[in-house]
Amino acid sequence: MKLYFQKSALMEGINIVMKAVPSKTTMTILECILIDATSGEIRLLSNDTEMAIQTMVPGTIAEPGMTAIDAKLFFEIVRKLPDNEILLESDPTDHILISCEKSRFNIAGRRGDEFVEMPSLEKGYYITLNQFTLKELIRQTIFSISLNDNNKMMTGELFEVRDNRLRVASLDGHRISIRNTILKESYEPKKVIVPGKTLVEISRIIGGEADEEVYIFFGSNHILFEFGRTIVVSRLIEGDYFRIDQMAGGGYETKITVNKKEFMDCIDQSIIFVRETDKKPLVMDIHDSAMKLSLNSMIGSMNGEISVDKTGNDLMIAFNPRFLQDALRVIDDETVDIYMVNAKNPCFIRDEDESYIYLILPVNFNTGR
Amino acid sequence: MKLYFQKSALMEGINIVMKAVPSKTTMTILECILIDATSGEIRLLSNDTEMAIQTMVPGTIAEPGMTAIDAKLFFEIVRKLPDNEILLESDPTDHILISCEKSRFNIAGRRGDEFVEMPSLEKGYYITLNQFTLKELIRQTIFSISLNDNNKMMTGELFEVRDNRLRVASLDGHRISIRNTILKESYEPKKVIVPGKTLVEISRIIGGEADEEVYIFFGSNHILFEFGRTIVVSRLIEGDYFRIDQMAGGGYETKITVNKKEFMDCIDQSIIFVRETDKKPLVMDIHDSAMKLSLNSMIGSMNGEISVDKTGNDLMIAFNPRFLQDALRVIDDETVDIYMVNAKNPCFIRDEDESYIYLILPVNFNTGR
Repeated sequence: MKLYFQKSALMEGINIVMKAVPSKTTMTILECILIDATSGEIRLLSNDTEMAIQTMVPGTIAEPGMTAIDAKLFFEIVRKLPDNEILLESDPTDHILISCEKSRFNIAGRRGDEFVEMPSLEKGYYITLNQFTLKELIRQTIFSISLNDNNKMMTGELFEVRDNRLRVASLDGHRISIRNTILKESYEPKKVIVPGKTLVEISRIIGGEADEEVYIFFGSNHILFEFGRTIVVSRLIEGDYFRIDQMAGGGYETKITVNKKEFMDCIDQSIIFVRETDKKPLVMDIHDSAMKLSLNSMIGSMNGEISVDKTGNDLMIAFNPRFLQDALRVIDDETVDIYMVNAKNPCFIRDEDESYIYLILPVNFNTGR
Repeated sequence: MKLYFQKSALMEGINIVMKAVPSKTTMTILECILIDATSGEIRLLSNDTEMAIQTMVPGTIAEPGMTAIDAKLFFEIVRKLPDNEILLESDPTDHILISCEKSRFNIAGRRGDEFVEMPSLEKGYYITLNQFTLKELIRQTIFSISLNDNNKMMTGELFEVRDNRLRVASLDGHRISIRNTILKESYEPKKVIVPGKTLVEISRIIGGEADEEVYIFFGSNHILFEFGRTIVVSRLIEGDYFRIDQMAGGGYETKITVNKKEFMDCIDQSIIFVRETDKKPLVMDIHDSAMKLSLNSMIGSMNGEISVDKTGNDLMIAFNPRFLQDALRVIDDETVDIYMVNAKNPCFIRDEDESYIYLILPVNFNTGR
């Protein structure tokens, strides 16, 4: 095999496929990137068995072939080469020579046919979405997946299509994050659970341009994201997702509208006194048009006050301040509405047309009053 | 005690004294910052017993007093306060209230008189130097101190004054870094060993302005750096420093002049194949006006070539590429001169007036030729 690349194009391709190179694996071949130039195009492929990424790299095939090359080493070498034409050659025993200007690198590759191909997926049902929207949907929900493997479903996110709406949701037992977005077309209903790790990597790869599309193909066991010259295929998580509609409905007794920045600043200040070993709640005391905020821990106490627009009853309720912070951080509105029933029931942070709903369970508190 | 500060002024002061707050200590009082407003000024003090930092913070003393406050907590609170006036109050039992706008923080302080005062030093002998020069001298030599405590002297740097010259030097058994600078005045000869850690922290604190001075006072057991409103006092390392004049003299058989960037790029590329467990040398093969560079390891090999201006003999010699990299990185010249005798003797990277001298010992190599 003998290939010519521009450094920048090759670097871009490597950066993309690096995201599915496992850091630890018993199958050492998967620590490689497959370079496949057997079919007229130059294809890079990585696969960590949960997720596979393939991208096409522009370049010249002087001699077709395929080989697998240690991903980290390949990344390091190409990164350190000058911004010029790179020659990549391999012989039948997979000895690889990479050269650029006066630098030459010799390394041992591995047989390309030992590499694990990406799972095949019948390209039937699919939806389209722009890259920016997908990136945002992930960012705005990913923080409330569970990192604990005990309940596999909680480590993934619900992707649910109904008519012209896509709903993305995650939950970890203490809170639920839901984002709804309008699609350009209507589709048959579909519901899958996508692993959180896949979504994190995808949001790192996609450029986030509002005018570029992502095609999402839903298979029975896999999901495929296609954008630009890149394809990501991931396993799905099996099971019926939690019935979030039942959890996220209902009325309210108290509604407050707060300035998001003021509220976040107070929460931020209260977190100073929270320790892993001493998780004290932030108490919100809503009375008329003021909300007093306080957090007391072994280390010290914080007290603040912000003005609110209140509808309904006065209320005293307490939350894990980090959960409030996580939700508020991904809301772009200047003011937010918070709906509550009483100190025992969850609060809902949501906008009028429910493009977002963040449900957070309250915690017990003792004010000592 | 009752003090008023502007947030930015207080934050700047805390940032400075934080550098001498120990992360682990058996004397828990040292995890605090002393706030002393007993003598008409507001003084912050930290002390890790090796080094103490004191800085004056502009502010208003409504009620004099002193107290000690947990450094990390104080830093976190002030950092998160709005950019406005801060009130800091303590009562006779060292309960502390910090407030700003509508936020109030209560924490337990400690008795100020429990804190460890900075060592006193008779302000006799001193030199002056601009901040930028001191910062540069440290940056350009600190990398070759030894991190290993076996030989205490190697963990520090030589500060040697002779007439109007200051020499700063460090060595770790494999290399020596020497920087010489001209002072504005002439002084009596003086020689001390300053702990590397002190120098690292000082170079972080000083602003690096070329028009602001640092006063360096040399005591018998301590050294004191004074700049702006800040004083840093550090213990000195005892002992007679190594005789670097004897090591750093002598003639040469081969001299090459190389483009620094080209040389560094090649070294950088070679380091890809160096592992902690497989430290192979970079072989330099100097022949006429070319220098071939190669590094062979278990992982692979790198070959490069750069053109040189050579005086004297052809030579093949090998070095730890990281040592070359460390020295070249802190030399600002576009080309560097390297002086060598043979493959067994150190090379010297130095400029004509010896404002810098970097000595590096070669390593054995086997080219297999």
